[in-house]
Amino acid sequence: MMVADVKLKKAVVLVSGGLDSATVLAVAKDQGFACYALSFDYGQRHRQELHAAAQVASDLGVAQHVVLDLNLRHFGGSALTADIAVPKDRPTAAMAHGIPVTYVPARNTVFLSCALAWAEVLECFDIFIGVNAVDYSGYPDCRPDYIAAFETMANLATRAGIEGRGKFHIHSPLMSLQKTGIIQLGLSLGVNYGHTWTCYDPGASGAACGRCDACQMRRTAFGQLGLTDPVAFESNSGDPT
Amino acid sequence: MMVADVKLKKAVVLVSGGLDSATVLAVAKDQGFACYALSFDYGQRHRQELHAAAQVASDLGVAQHVVLDLNLRHFGGSALTADIAVPKDRPTAAMAHGIPVTYVPARNTVFLSCALAWAEVLECFDIFIGVNAVDYSGYPDCRPDYIAAFETMANLATRAGIEGRGKFHIHSPLMSLQKTGIIQLGLSLGVNYGHTWTCYDPGASGAACGRCDACQMRRTAFGQLGLTDPVAFESNSGDPT
Repeated sequence: MMVADVKLKKAVVLVSGGLDSATVLAVAKDQGFACYALSFDYGQRHRQELHAAAQVASDLGVAQHVVLDLNLRHFGGSALTADIAVPKDRPTAAMAHGIPVTYVPARNTVFLSCALAWAEVLECFDIFIGVNAVDYSGYPDCRPDYIAAFETMANLATRAGIEGRGKFHIHSPLMSLQKTGIIQLGLSLGVNYGHTWTCYDPGASGAACGRCDACQMRRTAFGQLGLTDPVAFESNSGDPT
Repeated sequence: MMVADVKLKKAVVLVSGGLDSATVLAVAKDQGFACYALSFDYGQRHRQELHAAAQVASDLGVAQHVVLDLNLRHFGGSALTADIAVPKDRPTAAMAHGIPVTYVPARNTVFLSCALAWAEVLECFDIFIGVNAVDYSGYPDCRPDYIAAFETMANLATRAGIEGRGKFHIHSPLMSLQKTGIIQLGLSLGVNYGHTWTCYDPGASGAACGRCDACQMRRTAFGQLGLTDPVAFESNSGDPT
C-alpha cells in the first residue's frame, strides 16, 4: 500500500468567502494540491464573509485555514474600510467603467504578500488567487500584468526563490472567465455556492442586499444560466436583471 | 506670508525602532517630506522595538504613526516569530554567509505592501525603507533587484499607478552604506540612537543582549567610530569587538 506515502503538493489559496475564491479553492483541490486557506479580518464591513470562508474551507477539506487580523481601517480609503457608502442599483454600464469606491488600495498586494510569507514557511511555491479581469476590469490589482509583476518580485523576495529551490507561481485560474463561466466551473467541481458570501453591504436582517455591484453581478450570472442564486437576499432586493 | 500655504510632500516610512529605520526616517525628514511612520506588531519576540519606534517617531516629529497588528506567528518559520533560538556570539565571518534563522519569510514584502496601501490612501508616492545590502547580504529582501521589482509591481498594483497620477518610488537610502556610514549619517541628522532598539533577544533585565548578530553589528560599528553605543547592554554581554 503506497497511498499513505503520497505527499500532496501544498498550495496557499486566498479564500475570502466569496464566489470567486470558493471556485479557485475547488480548482486548486482538483489539481491535486493540499490547500492552505488564508483569509483576512481586515476591517471589512461585516463578518458574514469570514463565516463563509470558514464554511467553504471546511466544505472543500483544506489542510489548514488561517484568518489573519490586519486592520486596513487604519488606512481607510475605500467603501469597504471607511465610512463611505456602498453604491446600490448601479446600471451594468456604470459598473463597467472606472475604479469603484469599493476598491481597497493595494489589497491584493497585501493579501498576496502574506500568502507568499506563508508559502515560504510551508516550503511550497504555488499560490492561488481568484482575481478576474473581466468582471473587475476597474480594479488595477486584478489584471494579468499585475500578477506577472508580483510573481517576478516574489521570486526575488524570498530565500526559496533566490536559492533556486523552486519558482513561485501565482495561479489566477479565473482571470479570463465571465462570471457565468466561473459558476459553471465551480458547479462542475461541487462548490456549494449557498455557502459563499459576496454582498458588500448586507442589511439588518443579515441577508445579502441584492443591490450592490457584487450582488448584482452574481445574481445576474445565475439568472443567465437559468439558475437561482442559492444565497438569501433581502426581500426588497428586487428580481435579478 | 506664504509659509502656511506650503504643503509638504508626504512619504510613508517603515519604522521598526531599530538603528537603520531611525536613520531613514531622519533622511526622509531631511529631504523635506511630511513623514507617516508605519510599524508592525507582527509577533516579534519582545515589545521594546515598538516602544523604540514610538520614541523615534516622536523625536523626529512625524505627521502620524500607525502600528499595525499582523501576527506572523500564524506562519512561524523564523527565530523572530517562532520558538527557534536566536544565535549568539557568532563570529563576523559566520554572519557574512548564508541566510540566518532570524530571516522572517517575506517580511519586507508584507511591510512594503502595507506601506503601499497607506501611501495610496494618502495620495503620496514615496515610501522609505531601511534595507541595507551590505550588513544584511543574507536577506533576499534587502537587495536592489528586489526593491526594483517591488517598485515595478507597485506601479501596476494601484489606482494611482495606472491612472498616471504619479510613480511610486521605494527609497532605500541606506542600501550601499556600511553600518558605520549609517551611524555617521544619522548623527549628522540628529538621530538619538539611545532611543533605538536593535537587539533580537533581550534578557530578563530588559537590556540588549549584546551578543546576537544585530547587537554585535551595531556595537562593533560604534566602536569603529570611536564611540560607545548609547544603548544599555546586559552586564554579561562582553566588550564590543
